[in-house]
Amino acid sequence: MPAQPLTSEPRQTPADQAGNDLAEATTDASLERTRRRSEEIEAQIAADPTGFRVLTGDRPTGNLHLGHYFGSLLNRVRLQDAGVETMVLVADYQVITDRDGVGPIRERVLSLVADYLAVGIDPDRSTIFTHSAVPALNQLMLPFLSVVTDAELRRNPTVKSEMEATGDRPMSGLMLTYPVHQAADILFCKANLVPVGKDQLPHLEQARVVARRFDERYGRAGDAPVFPRPEALLSEAASVLGTDGQKMSKSRGNAIELGMDADTTARLLKRAVTDADRHITYDPVGRPEVSNLVQLTAMASGRDPHDVAREIGDGGGAALKRAATEAVNEMLAPVRARRAELVADEGHLLAVLRAGNERARAVADATLDEVRAAMQMVY
Amino acid sequence: MPAQPLTSEPRQTPADQAGNDLAEATTDASLERTRRRSEEIEAQIAADPTGFRVLTGDRPTGNLHLGHYFGSLLNRVRLQDAGVETMVLVADYQVITDRDGVGPIRERVLSLVADYLAVGIDPDRSTIFTHSAVPALNQLMLPFLSVVTDAELRRNPTVKSEMEATGDRPMSGLMLTYPVHQAADILFCKANLVPVGKDQLPHLEQARVVARRFDERYGRAGDAPVFPRPEALLSEAASVLGTDGQKMSKSRGNAIELGMDADTTARLLKRAVTDADRHITYDPVGRPEVSNLVQLTAMASGRDPHDVAREIGDGGGAALKRAATEAVNEMLAPVRARRAELVADEGHLLAVLRAGNERARAVADATLDEVRAAMQMVY
Repeated sequence: MPAQPLTSEPRQTPADQAGNDLAEATTDASLERTRRRSEEIEAQIAADPTGFRVLTGDRPTGNLHLGHYFGSLLNRVRLQDAGVETMVLVADYQVITDRDGVGPIRERVLSLVADYLAVGIDPDRSTIFTHSAVPALNQLMLPFLSVVTDAELRRNPTVKSEMEATGDRPMSGLMLTYPVHQAADILFCKANLVPVGKDQLPHLEQARVVARRFDERYGRAGDAPVFPRPEALLSEAASVLGTDGQKMSKSRGNAIELGMDADTTARLLKRAVTDADRHITYDPVGRPEVSNLVQLTAMASGRDPHDVAREIGDGGGAALKRAATEAVNEMLAPVRARRAELVADEGHLLAVLRAGNERARAVADATLDEVRAAMQMVY
Repeated sequence: MPAQPLTSEPRQTPADQAGNDLAEATTDASLERTRRRSEEIEAQIAADPTGFRVLTGDRPTGNLHLGHYFGSLLNRVRLQDAGVETMVLVADYQVITDRDGVGPIRERVLSLVADYLAVGIDPDRSTIFTHSAVPALNQLMLPFLSVVTDAELRRNPTVKSEMEATGDRPMSGLMLTYPVHQAADILFCKANLVPVGKDQLPHLEQARVVARRFDERYGRAGDAPVFPRPEALLSEAASVLGTDGQKMSKSRGNAIELGMDADTTARLLKRAVTDADRHITYDPVGRPEVSNLVQLTAMASGRDPHDVAREIGDGGGAALKRAATEAVNEMLAPVRARRAELVADEGHLLAVLRAGNERARAVADATLDEVRAAMQMVY
């Protein structure tokens, strides 16, 4: 998903989905333009947020962790609180692109909703919804597939790396076409802003290409194109690694989940990888594991990592881990308390999701009506 | 479309869509089994038609002609009149699989509805509907794409021949995935019977494979599989060629359209290809063009082709063409009269289509609810 800059799923790697159309998205010059444009957008949001609609979301494949928290959740809450209309997609149909079943999907979806609410996504201001509940969104796959070529789908680096990575497992038709489904996610609600890390820029570019081609090929319902061309809002958030110094991921067992209790968090951080030098410094290149713990401590407590390192000084890895544990547990305590209440009230979680799905359906139905008008399929 | 055994579109060629799963569908022994099974089904229909639901349809790319009439329309009306519940799909999203635009789609859709009603499809007993109006049908594409592999899509002979035939034109994502969309057409309404010519058996087999795999992978909402495995009803209708002895097709200019006037029909048949032998015989192998006109005359007048040939005897091509013209115009006169009335009343055509779309949406919504239950995506 565009809004998961820190997840470690294979499909989160850079993706260039439409060949020459997208090649530009990853050059340095283009990245610099996007960065400057993101700054302009941030200034516009600060002045007047009402013209923006953001689409973000996650696949419900496991509990959210600190990687998500610092990488995307805080940013979503910030945008929401700044007054930007926010659509948050629980991408349940993305779970089956490369799996043989849905797993405990219902439980995971509700857990994700609990995570969202616990961190401050406000269902009165943001729309939380699932793929499976919005038929008109999914219908957009068909006209969108008609403006994308087979060769483009195949050139998509994410799809390509998936083809290489799957080994014996044949790639599903859903995996092959998922970039187009993702374009539908963004365009069904006419999101004009997608928070992404730079690796996800080509993902967004696929949606821009679909929006442009739809306009060129099928025309308009009124004066304006049916779909605005969504823009990237580059997230420059520092990334947090797992306790082993690798990308944080549930499957690696190195992830501090939002919903963990304080003791589990302490045990996990106690096992974190450090090094033999008792003098703690902040040196991300030379001492990545130690520096990751320093940074985690700093981010969790809102301090500068150099100050954190200086304070621990010769305390060694044990003191660093204690500081990290304390900072993380303190930061997460209110989130965890809210989360525990939420999880105990399934009726409330369902009510939130149902209201969000209803809103999303109304938005999707309105867009599909315009699509039908543009395509002259009004009978 | 499964129910267009006589159309000349490239995608109507034999299609083996799921590799080994489907290979069996085209062997002689399998064909013989299907033929016997079709006879059993016909007997069951005669005894009690209430257990059957048929899905048929056409792409709205031009006016229907005698090829459609003898090849599929008469059979649909026969099944409807025998009491079989019939769903008739105007496949508007199939128009954009290989075209740069929709063309005069609205006009063509309404023209197709007029053709249907004129030949005797009764909207009180049959449901006429369009792809674009039934979001829950289209949503099925997503779970269905997850149970089909990229390699299977690529092995589909129709998709393969399309890849070869397009030349410079890149194949669209919609063309690549259309066999899966067609499975959704058949399965959304739980059709258990699809009238096909033997060339379309593999098309149907794709839907059977999807139904089976969905059951295996995602389970059930109740005791029975969500989707019945649809069966073929083999149509053994003799085919009618165009006036040039080639497959009848609007684009070849050799097609006698249902909506043509009597004079245009006469002019078209006057230009029909015959041969130098004035003695008319019915010899499809040795004299295909002449025999096609003989057969057309016979089918239009409900007679035996040998009798028709004998009666014309030494009258030559001119007499044969006069006989064919008379028979066709006489047969089509009431159809054309009804069609002219229907075309003059767009409001009625729209009302028929809207009522059909509403029924199809109710059916699709109910099926999608079961799909969500089977996939545990009930929130």
